[in-house]
Amino acid sequence: MTTVTEHAVLPVLPGQAAEFIETMDRAKAIIAASPGFISLRVARCVEQPDTFLLLVEWETLEDHTVGFRGSDAYLEWRALLHHFYDPSPVVEHFETVVTA
Amino acid sequence: MTTVTEHAVLPVLPGQAAEFIETMDRAKAIIAASPGFISLRVARCVEQPDTFLLLVEWETLEDHTVGFRGSDAYLEWRALLHHFYDPSPVVEHFETVVTA
Repeated sequence: MTTVTEHAVLPVLPGQAAEFIETMDRAKAIIAASPGFISLRVARCVEQPDTFLLLVEWETLEDHTVGFRGSDAYLEWRALLHHFYDPSPVVEHFETVVTA
Repeated sequence: MTTVTEHAVLPVLPGQAAEFIETMDRAKAIIAASPGFISLRVARCVEQPDTFLLLVEWETLEDHTVGFRGSDAYLEWRALLHHFYDPSPVVEHFETVVTA
């Protein structure tokens, strides 16, 4: 099965990284309960510690773009997390073509 | 053990995506042989098909920045792949802080 990776680079407001990590650790249960969710990883940039990488694996593109984004759970996810970001992150989707 | 993720968004020149994928599929053996290499994933953007995501897991930051980049193998990697990119990609490193 080909999965789809949701990808975003998250610019977190200065001084809010620790609170962001704590909030993401709570909010992950919201996205993890969405149909088609496979896994989530949030990672912190070594060179720019206010920048984070969000990678979410979905069974299909629509599980994210239609299912999750159209749900009440997404409103809760947004309310918890989006105030940490400036500017708003660009979210794109990727399909794996090479692995090693 | 905390691993380090090398991350780059690769802007491949228009019309060269198929050749890039084929070349990456051969070139991956070069990076995979480098000490500290754990895994590689290259994925193609759904929204912008000339854009690719490169994720390489390393045991430590220095396995990439000193070991691989200081090796003859890196010169070979560069020669095979870097002519596909315009502009040159920004490479950063990330450490996982939240998973689900």
